[in-house]
Amino acid sequence: MQIDMKQPILDKNDTLAAELRKRFAENHVFVLDLLASPGSGKTSTILATIDALRDEFNIAVIEGDIASSVDAEKIKAQGTSAVQINTGGACHLESAMVKRAVDVLDLERLDLIIIENVGNLVCPTDFDLGENAKVMILSVPEGDDKPLKYPGVFQVAQAVVLNKVDTMPVFDFNREAFEASVRQLNPQAPIFPIAATKGDGVEAWANWLAERIRAV
Amino acid sequence: MQIDMKQPILDKNDTLAAELRKRFAENHVFVLDLLASPGSGKTSTILATIDALRDEFNIAVIEGDIASSVDAEKIKAQGTSAVQINTGGACHLESAMVKRAVDVLDLERLDLIIIENVGNLVCPTDFDLGENAKVMILSVPEGDDKPLKYPGVFQVAQAVVLNKVDTMPVFDFNREAFEASVRQLNPQAPIFPIAATKGDGVEAWANWLAERIRAV
Repeated sequence: MQIDMKQPILDKNDTLAAELRKRFAENHVFVLDLLASPGSGKTSTILATIDALRDEFNIAVIEGDIASSVDAEKIKAQGTSAVQINTGGACHLESAMVKRAVDVLDLERLDLIIIENVGNLVCPTDFDLGENAKVMILSVPEGDDKPLKYPGVFQVAQAVVLNKVDTMPVFDFNREAFEASVRQLNPQAPIFPIAATKGDGVEAWANWLAERIRAV
Repeated sequence: MQIDMKQPILDKNDTLAAELRKRFAENHVFVLDLLASPGSGKTSTILATIDALRDEFNIAVIEGDIASSVDAEKIKAQGTSAVQINTGGACHLESAMVKRAVDVLDLERLDLIIIENVGNLVCPTDFDLGENAKVMILSVPEGDDKPLKYPGVFQVAQAVVLNKVDTMPVFDFNREAFEASVRQLNPQAPIFPIAATKGDGVEAWANWLAERIRAV
């Protein structure tokens, strides 16, 4: 007999995610679940996004990492609330972990929570965290063939941020081929080319996000 | 009651891995399990490694990907046997998958099998595939803080390949800080700085590997 061990875990996760989603909606908080490989620039993108949106919105960040709190420290240094979750080995965040972080935030005061998931293009894809949108970042140095090799994350993303576009001349990245394979997996998702550490392209991405925050 | 669902999966995996390890030893094949993030240059490193070692050793590659066969095609184009495993969503290779790939290879004829694991710094760490050594690649664009955030993979690696060192001027990568944190997690593992697509530094890494292949 084969026992499906993934299903009960997902069921339990999804029940709690639905409760979180209800709490977020009641408090008019937009929640973004950010997925990417290690080192694609999630934290830099979050810092640039906060810079672009902080005048209009109250923002908090939930940092998911296997170990360390270096990312939460970077966010706090910018004057934004950040809660660090250490998964202690787990390769993705689950809604129970997010709930513990949310419990220490003042939801009534917030407009936007950005969840930085564990750097992993595979496992976080399956886990509903009660978010309004999953968005993924791919960075140019990772290569244009990633949609072919990690299709799931490109399919669940409501938008694709292409980071480190300033390094395009250094890497052999075929942007047309990349965009064509994203289109094939996910015709609706906009692609935002940015260079997070330099601020290039952040405005268009931040505007897309701001529209959605205002709507909740 | 808490049921540990990871343990029985690992036990089953490890039993099969032990059988594989025995087969590899009987046939004097050295097996390398290569771990890295998506886009860190695993396939380029494999191509450069084959180039450096093909005169002395018979080599085959097992390519692990969630989907696609682009990597196996690249290896075959270089004239080396490659078997593609598509995990169909799974975030790591398991020994049962490797066994199916090994069954189509002529072990008697081979000296080295390189297993390119799924691009993931977390999950493959826990899975014994019967290999002689796990080696990890980190690429410079991913950042020098990765040992702090993904300690497990740095701990299991018998060597650390630091790829894309030619892009060091473009990225804010602190090599001393990186090496110090690797040392803390894993004092024994040598660190090999390379630029796989240009061949820089490949000789030292290939020599390290060649010594181990000759010893089995």
